[in-house]
Amino acid sequence: MINTLYLPELREMLVEANSVELHEFCTALHPARTAEFMEGLTADESWAVLRHADPALRSQIFSYFEHEKQIEILEQQARSEIAQLLTELPADDRVDLLHDVNADVVNEILPLLPVEDRRNILRLRAYPEHTAGAIMTTEVAILSETLTVRQALTELSHQAEHLETIYYIYVVDSDDHLRGVVSTRQLVSAIGKPETRLSELMETELITVNVLQDREEVVDRVAQFDLLAIPVVDAERRLIGIITHDDVIDVVREEATEDAHLIAGVAPLDDSYLKVDLLTLIWKRAIWLMVLFTAGICTAFALRHYEDRLTLAIWLIWFLPLVNSSGGNTGNQSATLIITALSAGDVSLAQWRKVMLRELVMGLALGSIMATLGVIATTMIIPSSPPLAHYLVFPLTLFLVVLFGTLVGSILPLLFERMGLDPALMSNPFVAGIMDLLGITVYLNVAIWLLTVVSKVVPPG
Amino acid sequence: MINTLYLPELREMLVEANSVELHEFCTALHPARTAEFMEGLTADESWAVLRHADPALRSQIFSYFEHEKQIEILEQQARSEIAQLLTELPADDRVDLLHDVNADVVNEILPLLPVEDRRNILRLRAYPEHTAGAIMTTEVAILSETLTVRQALTELSHQAEHLETIYYIYVVDSDDHLRGVVSTRQLVSAIGKPETRLSELMETELITVNVLQDREEVVDRVAQFDLLAIPVVDAERRLIGIITHDDVIDVVREEATEDAHLIAGVAPLDDSYLKVDLLTLIWKRAIWLMVLFTAGICTAFALRHYEDRLTLAIWLIWFLPLVNSSGGNTGNQSATLIITALSAGDVSLAQWRKVMLRELVMGLALGSIMATLGVIATTMIIPSSPPLAHYLVFPLTLFLVVLFGTLVGSILPLLFERMGLDPALMSNPFVAGIMDLLGITVYLNVAIWLLTVVSKVVPPG
Repeated sequence: MINTLYLPELREMLVEANSVELHEFCTALHPARTAEFMEGLTADESWAVLRHADPALRSQIFSYFEHEKQIEILEQQARSEIAQLLTELPADDRVDLLHDVNADVVNEILPLLPVEDRRNILRLRAYPEHTAGAIMTTEVAILSETLTVRQALTELSHQAEHLETIYYIYVVDSDDHLRGVVSTRQLVSAIGKPETRLSELMETELITVNVLQDREEVVDRVAQFDLLAIPVVDAERRLIGIITHDDVIDVVREEATEDAHLIAGVAPLDDSYLKVDLLTLIWKRAIWLMVLFTAGICTAFALRHYEDRLTLAIWLIWFLPLVNSSGGNTGNQSATLIITALSAGDVSLAQWRKVMLRELVMGLALGSIMATLGVIATTMIIPSSPPLAHYLVFPLTLFLVVLFGTLVGSILPLLFERMGLDPALMSNPFVAGIMDLLGITVYLNVAIWLLTVVSKVVPPG
Repeated sequence: MINTLYLPELREMLVEANSVELHEFCTALHPARTAEFMEGLTADESWAVLRHADPALRSQIFSYFEHEKQIEILEQQARSEIAQLLTELPADDRVDLLHDVNADVVNEILPLLPVEDRRNILRLRAYPEHTAGAIMTTEVAILSETLTVRQALTELSHQAEHLETIYYIYVVDSDDHLRGVVSTRQLVSAIGKPETRLSELMETELITVNVLQDREEVVDRVAQFDLLAIPVVDAERRLIGIITHDDVIDVVREEATEDAHLIAGVAPLDDSYLKVDLLTLIWKRAIWLMVLFTAGICTAFALRHYEDRLTLAIWLIWFLPLVNSSGGNTGNQSATLIITALSAGDVSLAQWRKVMLRELVMGLALGSIMATLGVIATTMIIPSSPPLAHYLVFPLTLFLVVLFGTLVGSILPLLFERMGLDPALMSNPFVAGIMDLLGITVYLNVAIWLLTVVSKVVPPG
């Protein structure tokens, strides 16, 4: 929902070029709120407003604009102004943004940046997507271990204004090798002992990530150790950046969405639903639908194979979708439970026996419940009074299919994990497809057994 | 995987009661690592090791133990030692833990705690689950606005040791009403101007949450404003606690798992997969399976209703599972895309026309692709050369069912959101169930039209 409360006033101020009030508007609220009130403005208008904020605040408000407006501003406003804006943005956000800006524009802007910023951008851009390097920032508080607490605080007060976060201060040697970390909290606690050296305060047992590690591992580590930021090092343990808590939250959310999409059989998207290119989205959905369809053709061959049994008792067909959906639903429940438990670290591969035992008990219990429902459904659906054996086909099948559903749904994700594949690939539609084929086979075999063999033993009721 | 590297040595030290080495073991590593190396020890053994750490470190290592071991220690070790441990734990974690401890034990421990800690625990316990109050901590840095930067740093250095986080310092008036916030970063930046008063530094435009707000809204706000911690206030805007970044990450992960479970038709669990009570889990799965089954009975009635058409051409049955699974898969893709986009804030209700238009185009495109596959499948599956009309039944149905799937899958979550319900309730099995019924109806109506009406016009090929 777009907040239109201030839009008329803002537009009037722009027409009047009312610097005083526009400056007041930019400074009065939290930058995120200011950006919210500007949502209804065009990119041009927004930039015209931002001109009235000083550079630091301007970049803060800008950082809360929606992505598309940011890109439009970067591509269309005066190159020199954009260069100034970029120097104020956090190093990691800046690189993410430039990634989506027209390459020609980027090439025009880069030479206008101070040489350090330019080198920094080029370096960060080189890290592959989904690695620690691609989400880290290079703006980090670095101090020498020989400083005292008093000196460190003074030095930090100079660095603080230019840094995204100062909650950990990293101590490196002359070759940039990471030696230790001091939290600002430790530093502040030590104010009473101002001559203590950082080398005495610093923690040397460090939790780090390698710059090429997958971002999902980074998130796991930050969550496990409850960190505010994690240092990123290269193979020689040189400090090259940090990943901060806000980026970790964003990654957690993105990964959760990606998993949900995979589970529903959509290849991961690079952008949000409304922004991703329609042709790309069609392809990312069609590819899975086609794979699932091709696998599903087996069900048609199976039914053709059992044609004689179906004509034997046409009412068997009535229950077929119920058999398939019950098997699919049970399988999906198990698969999703195991996939989420594996990805949250609640279950490990080593516990596969425990998992299978639970699902076996679960399958027996759920199967019994569903078989009871099956008896009720049969009496409702079959109109006349058929022989006893007819009443048993559907309930007995339900019991078996639900039991198989829990087993198939739990074995497959474990198997995928064992093979080093993402268990979320064992997506719901796959499990449902397997259960369709299994359901048809079980159903028609139970039917032939009950209707021909058992019927001969038990006389019609 | 349990790390067994140090287990023999640790057990030997315990047998020898080797205080020096056990103390060394506790202090040498990051507390999280120390806890990892103790995973193979029993609760008794772990506590025996922890006795050799000083109280602050002991509580840190303890906080990284797995939940079950923590509860076992709290319930079985000496009450007085446990009381001391509890005073050292962060206020929010302490309450979460006591929630799972046997009530009789809690009642024995509470009187042994200092009166402030006891009151604090009783107060925090009163907030309902899933509210901001239930995840907040009351340990927060609070200073008076009349302090200078120099005084504030000194005061903060005293508070820092006992607080979970000092990255924001809150300024309150005499009635605890929240007046403003100063970040430690601002404070450190102002070291050069030590006589500045906090009232001049502090930010008065504050982002807060109400203590009874849903935790999901808290997470959205923290993510939107990139905060390290968010203050929690009551209806009169009195500061009663803060929620810190690490709790936010935990909530994001828990909510993502809950959504995934809902989408797969499992009622949300209170605990992780292996820990949740088996009977509870059976119930949480059975309830949805039963609801879905009951709704699915419509498909049986529909097939019974169309019995004459099925006997008209028995080969129609061969394609039925493919029709149903294609419709269900397409519907699930759309539903999951819309649900995740709604929950990530990428799509709002106001954009429903845009969403429907996208899904309409998507449905036409995917329908055409699937219809093409349908022609190929028909030629593979129908053995002899049937009349032309026979070739068209399955492809035409696929086109319609896939188109309806995108529309149903996108309308339903939007409708649920509009009605104020959780769109994740419009779970995949529901969409699949609706698509089963729709698929059967469309398929058999298309069949009767093509096989009776059109066949008469187009002579057999």
